Amino acid sequence: MTQDIYLTGITTTGTPHIGNYVGAIRPGIEASKDPTKKNYYFLADYHALAKNEDPDKISQSTLEISAAWLALGLDTQNAIFYRQSDISEIPQLNWILASMTAKGLMNRAHSYKAAVATNAQGGNKDPDKGITMALYSYPILMAADILMFKATKVPVGRDQKQHVEMARDIAQRFNHHFGDVLVLPDPLIDADTAVLAGLDGRKMSKSYNNAIPLFADATRLRKLIMKIKTNSLEPGVPKETDGSTLYDMYKAFATTQETMDIEARYADGIAWGEMKQLLFELINDHIHPAREEYERLMGNPAIVEAELLQGAERAREVAAPYLAEIRDAIGVRKLG
Amino acid sequence: MTQDIYLTGITTTGTPHIGNYVGAIRPGIEASKDPTKKNYYFLADYHALAKNEDPDKISQSTLEISAAWLALGLDTQNAIFYRQSDISEIPQLNWILASMTAKGLMNRAHSYKAAVATNAQGGNKDPDKGITMALYSYPILMAADILMFKATKVPVGRDQKQHVEMARDIAQRFNHHFGDVLVLPDPLIDADTAVLAGLDGRKMSKSYNNAIPLFADATRLRKLIMKIKTNSLEPGVPKETDGSTLYDMYKAFATTQETMDIEARYADGIAWGEMKQLLFELINDHIHPAREEYERLMGNPAIVEAELLQGAERAREVAAPYLAEIRDAIGVRKLG
Repeated sequence: MTQDIYLTGITTTGTPHIGNYVGAIRPGIEASKDPTKKNYYFLADYHALAKNEDPDKISQSTLEISAAWLALGLDTQNAIFYRQSDISEIPQLNWILASMTAKGLMNRAHSYKAAVATNAQGGNKDPDKGITMALYSYPILMAADILMFKATKVPVGRDQKQHVEMARDIAQRFNHHFGDVLVLPDPLIDADTAVLAGLDGRKMSKSYNNAIPLFADATRLRKLIMKIKTNSLEPGVPKETDGSTLYDMYKAFATTQETMDIEARYADGIAWGEMKQLLFELINDHIHPAREEYERLMGNPAIVEAELLQGAERAREVAAPYLAEIRDAIGVRKLG
Repeated sequence: MTQDIYLTGITTTGTPHIGNYVGAIRPGIEASKDPTKKNYYFLADYHALAKNEDPDKISQSTLEISAAWLALGLDTQNAIFYRQSDISEIPQLNWILASMTAKGLMNRAHSYKAAVATNAQGGNKDPDKGITMALYSYPILMAADILMFKATKVPVGRDQKQHVEMARDIAQRFNHHFGDVLVLPDPLIDADTAVLAGLDGRKMSKSYNNAIPLFADATRLRKLIMKIKTNSLEPGVPKETDGSTLYDMYKAFATTQETMDIEARYADGIAWGEMKQLLFELINDHIHPAREEYERLMGNPAIVEAELLQGAERAREVAAPYLAEIRDAIGVRKLG
């Protein structure tokens, strides 16, 4: 039995919010501390290009997201934490895999099909209008990310499951041609992944503009929590926890005991204003220590850079000799 | 006025033949000696993958083609001669450019459209059958090859003209988003490029199996030349030079005086057998010195490897800082 290798990609667009924290960052950081697991975490900054963001935003977001994971305690001694663009082996493998990827496979990618459907709905004659080659061939770069480190388990949301399966397909085709060189990955779907609602009750998301930044200062955090939409039940009237954004958010940060206590307060008819204050205090207490560290790192980006470079070095110790092996298999070899 | 920069890609499939020599290698080598020109020559081994060749063939062909160019006198002190796969900056730029390339642009590439047309003629329901992503996105890698070295002039055959124009389009779109970073290239079409016919009178080509290997030994060279198709005119009957494969081949290697002499012999009704013998002697005398050097290099691939590594080092001295500049422009930056 060989040890499983886990690989987690972190998108570098936007500022980390509480929904990211509960759904991805916290479980990811927890996993990074498990000494029995081999874990890779990377900042997917080359993927961010596919979204054509403003350069300063890409750079700023890379800093904020790295600083967030580090401040919250990502174990970079146990896990390997690196920036995709620091591993020059990945784009090389990307091209090698492109030679083993049927165009038909990319045609079937959900993300591409969704973009085509949007064009059709918009009445565009050109189904590919506005679609870049980075968006279209994104699953190949993702396959390179995964296969470069022989990852066997890739924790992803349901929307990314197909991409991991494509990485598997591409690896299988490669191995069929060139022998048993690449390792076949499996997607790891956590059905229990917590999804938090945002200020307006819809899923918390940068694009809905309803997010609470993870490291908002206490004043701003309180102000945002006070804005969370509730129903109009008066104080004293018993309230349902089910469907309550405030309750879900509270539960995401509370102990079991604290959750039971708040359930009792709901039944007793807690006032929304008081509930918001309790939620603010809970989250603020939870985030407070990391917020200080986050601010220290944001003020000293060189510390973050050094962490990333150290991670890149460890990652390349794996990637460089493996890429040499892959190149040898396909005939891209040193002479003599 | 800035100096023009020339960039020539050399495909690494097959064994170099006399048609390659006359059409591409000889003029390329001539240009490499011009001290007033900045010239890059590279072995396009990552492009060869798109053709899905046998690994040993890719490797062998890279050796044969490098050895041929070196044996024939490519000036690697003046020009920069390198192997594409040694420049890790190129696949990185490839991905960056993919984010600036409309999928619609790739849909319009002649090479892709030809493959789709072949599928349609073959009655395939799937227009993309058998088409890999490397074939489809080949023009982006070619753009990366060109733009990586700020090439302004790209000598290509007519079939590659569109790809250089696409590189230009992609660079323009990049510059529109990120400022004046990339240099716009122009295709350089040599209308006079000599095209030799092969043994059967069709264009000499590996795929027609009608080629005369450039470094066939004297015995084999003679044998192959004796096989060249002629008409059935008897000795003593005057012969047309026009449409004569033997004449065209002779002319490609002869001085003006020698060509005039052979024209006189045609008018006098030279026997085909004698003409073949004269052609053999002319080519053999011409190739002989390089053939010895070629065989020495083929027996010492480490010498060729050292030349390529030295070229790669010089190429990366240009590519590495320029890629850093490009990455900075798009926001893929060091922190702090």
